[in-house]
Amino acid sequence: MAGKSSSNTAGKPIHCRAAIARKAGEPLVIEEVIVAPPKPHEVRIKITCTSLCHTDVTFWKLEHPPGIFPIIFGHEAVGIVESVGEGVHEVVEGDTVIPIFLPDCGECTDCLSDKSNICSKFPLRPSFGMQRDDTSRFTDINGETLNHFLFVSSFSEYTVVDIAHVTKINPTIPPNRACLLGCGISTGVGAAWKTAKVEVGSTVAIFGLGAIGLAVAEGARLCGAKRIIGVDVNQDKCEIGKKFGVTDFVNSRNIGDKTVSEIIMEMTDGGADYCFECVGLTSLVHEAYASCRKGWGKTVMVGIDHPGAMLTLSSFEILHSGKSLMGSFFGGLKPKSDIRILEKRYLDKELQLDEFVTHEVDFKDINKAFDLLLEGKSLRCVIWMNK
Amino acid sequence: MAGKSSSNTAGKPIHCRAAIARKAGEPLVIEEVIVAPPKPHEVRIKITCTSLCHTDVTFWKLEHPPGIFPIIFGHEAVGIVESVGEGVHEVVEGDTVIPIFLPDCGECTDCLSDKSNICSKFPLRPSFGMQRDDTSRFTDINGETLNHFLFVSSFSEYTVVDIAHVTKINPTIPPNRACLLGCGISTGVGAAWKTAKVEVGSTVAIFGLGAIGLAVAEGARLCGAKRIIGVDVNQDKCEIGKKFGVTDFVNSRNIGDKTVSEIIMEMTDGGADYCFECVGLTSLVHEAYASCRKGWGKTVMVGIDHPGAMLTLSSFEILHSGKSLMGSFFGGLKPKSDIRILEKRYLDKELQLDEFVTHEVDFKDINKAFDLLLEGKSLRCVIWMNK
Repeated sequence: MAGKSSSNTAGKPIHCRAAIARKAGEPLVIEEVIVAPPKPHEVRIKITCTSLCHTDVTFWKLEHPPGIFPIIFGHEAVGIVESVGEGVHEVVEGDTVIPIFLPDCGECTDCLSDKSNICSKFPLRPSFGMQRDDTSRFTDINGETLNHFLFVSSFSEYTVVDIAHVTKINPTIPPNRACLLGCGISTGVGAAWKTAKVEVGSTVAIFGLGAIGLAVAEGARLCGAKRIIGVDVNQDKCEIGKKFGVTDFVNSRNIGDKTVSEIIMEMTDGGADYCFECVGLTSLVHEAYASCRKGWGKTVMVGIDHPGAMLTLSSFEILHSGKSLMGSFFGGLKPKSDIRILEKRYLDKELQLDEFVTHEVDFKDINKAFDLLLEGKSLRCVIWMNK
Repeated sequence: MAGKSSSNTAGKPIHCRAAIARKAGEPLVIEEVIVAPPKPHEVRIKITCTSLCHTDVTFWKLEHPPGIFPIIFGHEAVGIVESVGEGVHEVVEGDTVIPIFLPDCGECTDCLSDKSNICSKFPLRPSFGMQRDDTSRFTDINGETLNHFLFVSSFSEYTVVDIAHVTKINPTIPPNRACLLGCGISTGVGAAWKTAKVEVGSTVAIFGLGAIGLAVAEGARLCGAKRIIGVDVNQDKCEIGKKFGVTDFVNSRNIGDKTVSEIIMEMTDGGADYCFECVGLTSLVHEAYASCRKGWGKTVMVGIDHPGAMLTLSSFEILHSGKSLMGSFFGGLKPKSDIRILEKRYLDKELQLDEFVTHEVDFKDINKAFDLLLEGKSLRCVIWMNK
C-alpha cells in the first residue's frame, strides 16, 4: 500500500500500514489506515525509521487517561516529506525531516529567545490530535478515528505533523541514527550541554544509566567533563557506561549502609559539579541534590516522575548551599536549531549515536521492540518501516 | 575607658564598653567588658559604627538554643584595626576594616574559585566563640565569659575577629555607610548581581520590601533591570521602594481573590525574569516560583525561614517549566573581593547606600535601634560607638 510516488498522492488520502495500539498493554496490531492530506501548516511525512522510547511504553501501559486508545504511538523518527499543506514554506516534498514532539513556532518570544525552548504559541498541553485543531488525520478502514501521540505518531508508514514540529535535516545522515535525535538521546545530550552547561574538566554524576542517562554521559563527555560517575542498580551498566564516557560506576545496590550521596561525596572530595536525575524518581532528586558540590553544584532533573510527584527540599539547605536546581525538558534544546548542531556533530564523528542502537527490527516485528525495552535488553531499538 | 592609643594597648586586655544581652528579649545593658588581645590569625578592632540587622533581633528573641546568653550581638560594622595577632599580614594597625560573618580564608578551593562564597576551610556551623578555637575573647568585670555572635560581636567598642572574617576597605568611605556593607545591604545587592546575574532590560519581582528586598531592588537597578516589581503588605513601601528603583508596587493584602503570582503574570505578560523571596517564608517561595517566566525564570531565595522549613515543589513543574531555583547566601558575594567592588561603586555614586540609613543613634541608645526595627520604622539604624 505504501510507496506510491508523492506526485500521485499529494492532496489525497493515503492508505498505508500503521501499528495501532487498541488496548493498554496489548501488542500493537499492524493494520491498514487512511492518512488524510495535510491541512494548512501541516506536513505529511513518509517515515523511514522510528525508534522506541520509554514514553511510548509508559502511555501504552496506561489504562485510564491520559492513556487513550486506539492510538498510533511513536515519536522518535525520521522520514521524507511526501507533501505539504498550505502555508508551509520551510520544507518541500522530498526533504528529509525529523518530527519532534516539542513545538518550535519560530515566532513567539520563547522561540525567538536563546534562553527558552518552551514555545508560547503552542503551550504544553495534553492533546491526541494535531497541534492547531486537535483533530486526527488517521482513520482505520472501518472509519474509526485513531488518536495521535505527542503530535508525531511515527508508528505509521505515513504521518501528518504540524510544521512547528518538523525539523529539516541533512539527508546524508543514516536514518537509523537520525531518528534517535527526535527525543531521548537529544534530551540527555542537551541536558548536559544546554541545561547544565557542563564545563571542561568538571565532574558529573548521573543517576540512572538508561538511554537518557547514557546520553547525558555522552553530552558531558562532549563538553569535556573529566570525570563522569554513573549510578545504577544494574551492574551491566558499568561496562555499557564506558562506551559513553562513564569513568566511574556506583552500583547503588552494593554500597552497604551508605547512601549514594555519601559515596559520591567521598569519591569527589565534596560532591559533583553537576548531578542528573535520569530515572524519573523524585526521591532520587534528593540524593542528586545531596551529591552536588556546595558553592556551585547544579542538580538537573531529566527523568519524568508521575504527574503528582512532589519534591521536598530543606529551605535551609537551598539557602546556604550555593546549589541550584533545574529541570531539563527535551534537554533544553531548541528543536529547529539545536538538532541541526547535534546532527553536524554526529557527521563530524564527535557525537556518538551508533552505540545507542542495540537492536533493529522490521516494522512487522514492532512488538519485539517493546519486549526488548520492557526486558531492559535494549537502549534503542530502531524500527525500519520498509527495509 | 575606650580611646586609648593602640600603641599602649597592643598585647594587653582592653577595658571598654559593650552592650550585653543577658536574657532573651530584654534590653541590652551597656557594661564594662574586658577584651583579650588577638591570638594568632586574629585582629582586634575598634568599632566606629555598627548597624542593627534582623538577624541580631532574631537571635536576641530566642530563649532556647541556638539562642544563648550572655552574648554580645552585632555583625554589621566598620572599625579601625587596633592590633593584630601573630601571622596576620593582611591588615595592620590603623587600617579601616569591615568584619564579616562569612569567612573567606583565601586558601581553600571555594575561596579560590569565582563560583563559590562558601569557605571549605571554615565550614558553616553554629559557634559562639572565635572561628579557630570556639573560645571567647570577652569577659565581664565579674570574670564571666561573654559569647560572640556570628564571629563579629560589634556591639562593643572593641572586638576580636579572625582575619578570615576581616575585609580591609577604603578609609574615605563614611563609616555610617561602610557598616551597611557587612551584611544585609550587600546580601540584597549581591542576590541580584552575583546570584541571579540580572540582565539589562529584564523584569524583576521582589517579595518583601524590607532592607534586604530594597537592596535587591537597588542591585537589580544597578544591573539595568527595566522593571522592578515590589510586593509587600505595607502600603508605605510603595513610596519607599521608588527610592531604590522599584517601578511597580503590589500590595498583597489588596488583590482580592487573586494570588500574587496571578497578578505578576498579568502585569508581565507571562512572568518576571527573576523572582526574589526576601521575607523568609518558604510558602512565599512557591508564589515566587509561580511568578517566574517559564523558559528561563530564576527564583532566588534570600530570606531565612526557620531551620526545619521545607520547600515542596511539583516535580512536573520543575521539569517542564525551564525555571531554576537557587539560594543566595550573603548575596553570593565573596567577602574579601566583592565588598571592595561595592565600596567602589558607592564611592563612584553608582550604588546607593544613604537612603538605607533611616536612623542614627549613640551607642548608649542602642535599645532604641531595637525598638525602631521591631516597630518596622527603620530600614537601617546606625549606632555610633563614640560620636
